[in-house]
Amino acid sequence: MKILLTGFDPFNGEKINPSWEAIKRFPKMIGGANILKTKIPTVFYKSIQKLEEIIEKERPNIVICVGQAGGRTDITVERVAININDAKIPDNEKNQLIDTPIFEDGKNAYFSNLPIKAIVKEIRKNNIPASISNTAGTFVCNHLMYGLLYLIDKKYPNIKGGFIHVPYIHKQVLNKPNIPSMSLKDIIKGLKIAVVTSIKFYNKQDIEFSDGKIS
Amino acid sequence: MKILLTGFDPFNGEKINPSWEAIKRFPKMIGGANILKTKIPTVFYKSIQKLEEIIEKERPNIVICVGQAGGRTDITVERVAININDAKIPDNEKNQLIDTPIFEDGKNAYFSNLPIKAIVKEIRKNNIPASISNTAGTFVCNHLMYGLLYLIDKKYPNIKGGFIHVPYIHKQVLNKPNIPSMSLKDIIKGLKIAVVTSIKFYNKQDIEFSDGKIS
Amino acid sequence: MKILLTGFDPFNGEKINPSWEAIKRFPKMIGGANILKTKIPTVFYKSIQKLEEIIEKERPNIVICVGQAGGRTDITVERVAININDAKIPDNEKNQLIDTPIFEDGKNAYFSNLPIKAIVKEIRKNNIPASISNTAGTFVCNHLMYGLLYLIDKKYPNIKGGFIHVPYIHKQVLNKPNIPSMSLKDIIKGLKIAVVTSIKFYNKQDIEFSDGKIS
Amino acid sequence: MKILLTGFDPFNGEKINPSWEAIKRFPKMIGGANILKTKIPTVFYKSIQKLEEIIEKERPNIVICVGQAGGRTDITVERVAININDAKIPDNEKNQLIDTPIFEDGKNAYFSNLPIKAIVKEIRKNNIPASISNTAGTFVCNHLMYGLLYLIDKKYPNIKGGFIHVPYIHKQVLNKPNIPSMSLKDIIKGLKIAVVTSIKFYNKQDIEFSDGKIS
Repeated sequence: MKILLTGFDPFNGEKINPSWEAIKRFPKMIGGANILKTKIPTVFYKSIQKLEEIIEKERPNIVICVGQAGGRTDITVERVAININDAKIPDNEKNQLIDTPIFEDGKNAYFSNLPIKAIVKEIRKNNIPASISNTAGTFVCNHLMYGLLYLIDKKYPNIKGGFIHVPYIHKQVLNKPNIPSMSLKDIIKGLKIAVVTSIKFYNKQDIEFSDGKIS
Repeated sequence: MKILLTGFDPFNGEKINPSWEAIKRFPKMIGGANILKTKIPTVFYKSIQKLEEIIEKERPNIVICVGQAGGRTDITVERVAININDAKIPDNEKNQLIDTPIFEDGKNAYFSNLPIKAIVKEIRKNNIPASISNTAGTFVCNHLMYGLLYLIDKKYPNIKGGFIHVPYIHKQVLNKPNIPSMSLKDIIKGLKIAVVTSIKFYNKQDIEFSDGKIS
Repeated sequence: MKILLTGFDPFNGEKINPSWEAIKRFPKMIGGANILKTKIPTVFYKSIQKLEEIIEKERPNIVICVGQAGGRTDITVERVAININDAKIPDNEKNQLIDTPIFEDGKNAYFSNLPIKAIVKEIRKNNIPASISNTAGTFVCNHLMYGLLYLIDKKYPNIKGGFIHVPYIHKQVLNKPNIPSMSLKDIIKGLKIAVVTSIKFYNKQDIEFSDGKIS
Repeated sequence: MKILLTGFDPFNGEKINPSWEAIKRFPKMIGGANILKTKIPTVFYKSIQKLEEIIEKERPNIVICVGQAGGRTDITVERVAININDAKIPDNEKNQLIDTPIFEDGKNAYFSNLPIKAIVKEIRKNNIPASISNTAGTFVCNHLMYGLLYLIDKKYPNIKGGFIHVPYIHKQVLNKPNIPSMSLKDIIKGLKIAVVTSIKFYNKQDIEFSDGKIS
């Protein structure tokens, strides 16, 4: 089995991006599966283009894209990506798309087909905080997740794919009072559990337990 | 022009629901338009059923459903509803739906067709904090919003509709330390601006400005 | 009876200071007492000096200093001021005092002698969120509160005095996502209740109820 | 050199207290100094009594008491303890003291005489978030810190002592949405740095840099 993991370039004035810091430290194999790692530019459309090139070339079975969610307290497994670009800040090539659809011929939204509940449950079992998120925002993270699920829908129906957001790591918040962070070690551990769980559930239904939000 | 406004029953141990507290105080006319007001039960499907009955009977031009988002700091205009029920708590009739689609034949998500950006801009102009939200959660608020937009998509294409979340009002947080709230007066004022703006943009495109979220 | 109320100049890039916005709108009399209002510069020592001049000249019975606590959700009645200057940012005359005592001959801390619990209770009774705070920070707010209580301790033993922090008002947070705020109207209402309660308890013991913090 | 470290019993429905989880895992020696470890009951006065017995018996050079500050994002080095008990919840023996002084003959407040700024700086240097706190609350943490500094002031002038608050550890927040936490490993690492720094500064002035709070 082949698993593609992606992290992002730093953006918004940060010097590092915890998603890539974590992914680049992954071993080449986990649980008998080959791990491919790619750094994705935090740029509208270029990000999706780069993802598509690697998917087309490598034909992975599972794709997990990872991004930074500064200010969140835990590892959040995204449930859904929506067909909108609405950038609060310019991307790394100064594009600031506002209220445009990502793909004109795409659905309004796509749901992750990773076992999102099982991933949350397994990460928590290992004493690392995790939860389901119902929004990946409207910047390049949601954009890439949408692009991945659009590609799966249109061209690669056998791929299991989704997106996981990770908090800032400690060194990013040393001068940001009251902003939560997680150690890189715990983030890597949590993401490895996500990989192993995705492999285990490759041909199985996700588990069901309540982890929704009231609002 | 006819405008239907809905608020919810109290839930989750609260004695009041600020959405209905606000809506029930609305006048019968605003800017020459007739205002209809309905209290919706915080119950899966019954909520949508009640909404549909009134829409079918009254044929409003605009429908704005309002709900409580405890813990948010401002009036949030929802952008999108997703086709999922995932209840963290039971609804008011003890149903706790987990990971079921709202309608099997519905789209993955529907976007509000209210002028959401114009509403945010106008509320802010009046010095009341407001913003776009990209998730209405996975409980009855998202459920009702999805139901409304599903009905618009399937049966009532001329209706403009969407959902607005309001914070707790002050008296709900007197014993909840560090939880933000807004005065009922400001909530009513903000919602009136939403109504007036929806009327004004009934046949116009929404304005464009950046109010997205990074994550 | 004579009551002195003070608010501060704007600081930290803000265009207004809600403390002065509130105080300057106070009437000349409340409950038979004369209200004196003074704007205090957000400057170390100059603030205390200006306060002392007015106290010396006017001999008020009660002094309530008010300041902005950006980020807090409610009206907070300060319990204690500590003998330290530790400025995170420069004051309005570019002084940035670090780890110096306010007065060498002062006590480590002074407790407010306003009826802080009664004030909190009465404000809440009027459905405005309020609580006791155990820190006024280490910038000019704590500095002025300390200065006031030092003066009471050393020279004006009959004065009742203390400090109240108020949240940002709405217009300050229109472009600050997720930061709580309160309407100026509610702030003024809360502060008036504080004044009336201080008069009522001028010769009485404060009430007792639990409003402490675990940490 | 002899160093006494204390942690607390669990309280407020928690099954563990991260302060004791951390302290009990400390080695017997650090940097040539002997480490003594004691678990303190989360009970008014009993806590101080137990602390005094050990101090009297062991005559440590440095005492660092550690407690849980649920909801904080980082390791916080307390600057000051105030002479008040105001319990929001009952302690572990059902005492709920409200607005009583800790010691009638004590000062209004005592400042930590640990090198608090150096500790914060050194912890941060090791990429663990830390900051100065200006309130230890009004429950048993502040109570014990006050008791320690009172004892130093009255009877043991050569002891260096103070208090450090640590966040929840991960397993405490698995079912507490949006509440920050830190890994036990990082907490232990941070506290060890605090010990080493306290030894290093035993006969030296603390460093000076700005780490105050506006409010």
